[in-house]
Amino acid sequence: MAQKPSIPKGTRDFSPEETIRRNYIFDTIKDVFNLYGYLPIETPAMENLNTLLGKYGEEGDKLLFRILNSGDFLLNADNKSLIDKDSNRISGQIAEKGLRYDLTVPFARYVVQHQNEIIFPFKRYQIQPVWRADRPQKGRYREFFQCDADVIGSVGLFNETELIQIIDEVFKRLKIRITVKINNRKILAGIAEIIGEPDRITDITIAIDKLDKIGHEKVVAELIERGLKVEAINKLQPILSISGNNDERLNRLKEILAESTTGLKGVEELSTVISMIKELDLIAPVELDLTLARGLNYYTGAIFEVKALDMEIGSITGGGRYDDLTGVFGLNGVSGVGMSFGADRIFDVMNQLNLFPDEVTTSTKLLFVNFGVREALQCMKIATILRNKGVKAEVYPDNDKMKKQMAYADKKNIQYVAIIGEDELINDKVTLKIMHTGEQKIFSVQEFIDSLI
Amino acid sequence: MAQKPSIPKGTRDFSPEETIRRNYIFDTIKDVFNLYGYLPIETPAMENLNTLLGKYGEEGDKLLFRILNSGDFLLNADNKSLIDKDSNRISGQIAEKGLRYDLTVPFARYVVQHQNEIIFPFKRYQIQPVWRADRPQKGRYREFFQCDADVIGSVGLFNETELIQIIDEVFKRLKIRITVKINNRKILAGIAEIIGEPDRITDITIAIDKLDKIGHEKVVAELIERGLKVEAINKLQPILSISGNNDERLNRLKEILAESTTGLKGVEELSTVISMIKELDLIAPVELDLTLARGLNYYTGAIFEVKALDMEIGSITGGGRYDDLTGVFGLNGVSGVGMSFGADRIFDVMNQLNLFPDEVTTSTKLLFVNFGVREALQCMKIATILRNKGVKAEVYPDNDKMKKQMAYADKKNIQYVAIIGEDELINDKVTLKIMHTGEQKIFSVQEFIDSLI
Repeated sequence: MAQKPSIPKGTRDFSPEETIRRNYIFDTIKDVFNLYGYLPIETPAMENLNTLLGKYGEEGDKLLFRILNSGDFLLNADNKSLIDKDSNRISGQIAEKGLRYDLTVPFARYVVQHQNEIIFPFKRYQIQPVWRADRPQKGRYREFFQCDADVIGSVGLFNETELIQIIDEVFKRLKIRITVKINNRKILAGIAEIIGEPDRITDITIAIDKLDKIGHEKVVAELIERGLKVEAINKLQPILSISGNNDERLNRLKEILAESTTGLKGVEELSTVISMIKELDLIAPVELDLTLARGLNYYTGAIFEVKALDMEIGSITGGGRYDDLTGVFGLNGVSGVGMSFGADRIFDVMNQLNLFPDEVTTSTKLLFVNFGVREALQCMKIATILRNKGVKAEVYPDNDKMKKQMAYADKKNIQYVAIIGEDELINDKVTLKIMHTGEQKIFSVQEFIDSLI
Repeated sequence: MAQKPSIPKGTRDFSPEETIRRNYIFDTIKDVFNLYGYLPIETPAMENLNTLLGKYGEEGDKLLFRILNSGDFLLNADNKSLIDKDSNRISGQIAEKGLRYDLTVPFARYVVQHQNEIIFPFKRYQIQPVWRADRPQKGRYREFFQCDADVIGSVGLFNETELIQIIDEVFKRLKIRITVKINNRKILAGIAEIIGEPDRITDITIAIDKLDKIGHEKVVAELIERGLKVEAINKLQPILSISGNNDERLNRLKEILAESTTGLKGVEELSTVISMIKELDLIAPVELDLTLARGLNYYTGAIFEVKALDMEIGSITGGGRYDDLTGVFGLNGVSGVGMSFGADRIFDVMNQLNLFPDEVTTSTKLLFVNFGVREALQCMKIATILRNKGVKAEVYPDNDKMKKQMAYADKKNIQYVAIIGEDELINDKVTLKIMHTGEQKIFSVQEFIDSLI
């Protein structure tokens, strides 16, 4: 019996139109990476579970897709756990591999495994799917692409600056207007230190983040509820009210953080990056944002994030500096800085704002109508000449009714239709029809070719 | 404790050099597909197991990678099978999804699921990884890419012809010299019919295939061993000794198969394709090969295969016509013809024969040496101008020792190094070093830019 076919929830088929549009985004990003000397790598979809486990927190471990061992996988599973139906214990005994959860951990594994072949500083990019057993919802999928670039083995703030330059170039090419928000983990640590709550960075930033939405009083209330001392909250006041342009705010921060070595280091790093960026004539504004606190569990220096200006959507790109990517795999002292483009959100922004160029949405330029073997052969020969000149041309494969062939051209959004019937064949002519006007012209074969290339 | 990192057996990491080379192959194939009006689709890595099971034979079912259900997967597993450690029964209860085994079944599923959105005839290509729990060995991996193109919903022999034209174009661009072997399943059926063994196509073709290697007598011995009647073997003799060019052999086959309607249909189909190909000035010879018997369980018409001329390796591309791809998912009467490029083997051929063009192996053209923040900024500005002209340029990210920076350029196979030290910065100059000669020249910034674009 025939099954009604479907795909696992949270996964997607991509139609030709979607695939072409997605590839346009990926190719744009790749082109820019290549121009900046970043090199591509690829890692396998499956990693050993001991590479993945414990790297994403307890919650992350649960979201890993595990791959059942091949063959008689239950053979060595322990009887008691089987009888107890202890899924947790058994899963460790019957599955040794998992699907990658992100590109960062496989990259760290790659760097350590291939450290003797890699040329450092290693500027790599990687565009591959990742899998998470998350509950699917709007905009959240169980299979999605990540699009990462990192520089490993280099400490210079040059790298942070260059990544922001790359972001600017990518979004310029994609025609998405953006702001780059930038912060530094060391500044956040400095603030926490100065107000006497060095361990409460996260609580503090979450509260600061709500300032715009819920107002000053409620932020204070929340901080009290989160257990911060009133004294600390009072000390936070001048920081919350910092205003002005980047330079003014950095100067003010320098005064406030005067007693924190870490905080001052953060201000200095951020100042250097911002002053370099100023020289580079970027299109996107780059804005210090003290509420930016992404990836606090691994970023150690710069943190940055990209917001689309013309659409309400979460961050469409983000990244930062981390000082110990590979330590967990036994290679210490490797600093890196990286970023990740959010391909799905970028796709949504471009679709909604209608930013895909025309050549991305129409694929074939010219369709030859098929009137039978002899005519089709003539079409194939002419199509070959055009393709050698880079023109996308197809010959309809069957001698179907004219109406059906024209409908095909119409639905595929093909601009031109070429007709070679018996008359045209004998006289070495081609009738060209322009689809959007309906206009028809008869050409000699050579004129026809010249008119299309 | 640090783990020694590794990847699952049968999987691979691809270094930058390998990734760039592989992408060169994929991009070449994609470019040609696009020129012929084929459109890309993508399907998820995970399919429901009921989509995959039973489609690849019993052996194939065993080679599927199954994905453990999330959460408390043992909850509803049956107690008896657990206690019996019946892996077979349990696997059906704890895993609902599997990794795709090829691109054909997911494509059939896609066509049925999206039949109302698809424009037929549907010319699609798909380049994605597939997974098989095969025993890894030289040249056989558990994760590898397939690179398929199919035309669905069209019966014209035009399609077979065009696919061979595409094959010719792809290998012309890759500079691999090939022969295309072609056969027709109906001819094989006709031969089996004529000699009175209609159900023994496979045995007959396996034997014929060995003619070159083991000689006439041993083939006969093998056929007897495989249980063919002596009478049938005698009737096979004239077929085995057919010789001459394609036309001569087709004419001879026509005589031999005169009593088989199916056989004659096959000869006619093959003659049409071969005569069309003759008109198209292909580079690759196309050769009738009666021993070609790939995919006999699903191909119903043309069968073809590509052999590299300059290296001993299995077929590097293959395909054929099938009359019922989607029936198993409830959509009958959809004929198709398709092919698959063997990316891994093509990669091996190109590596061994040294066919990758230089621009594929060298990535960055120009490296700017980094002498500190001010100098690096000047480098970044000039690099930006060059990148806007399409020149791949990078600035070394750290103010490391000159020797280290030059070694980086050398190892990365970078052609030119630009030096902007204090002197150059003040005088608006650039020193350019040509790496393979060691020659150095001083330019004004503008001359420098002009010399590189």
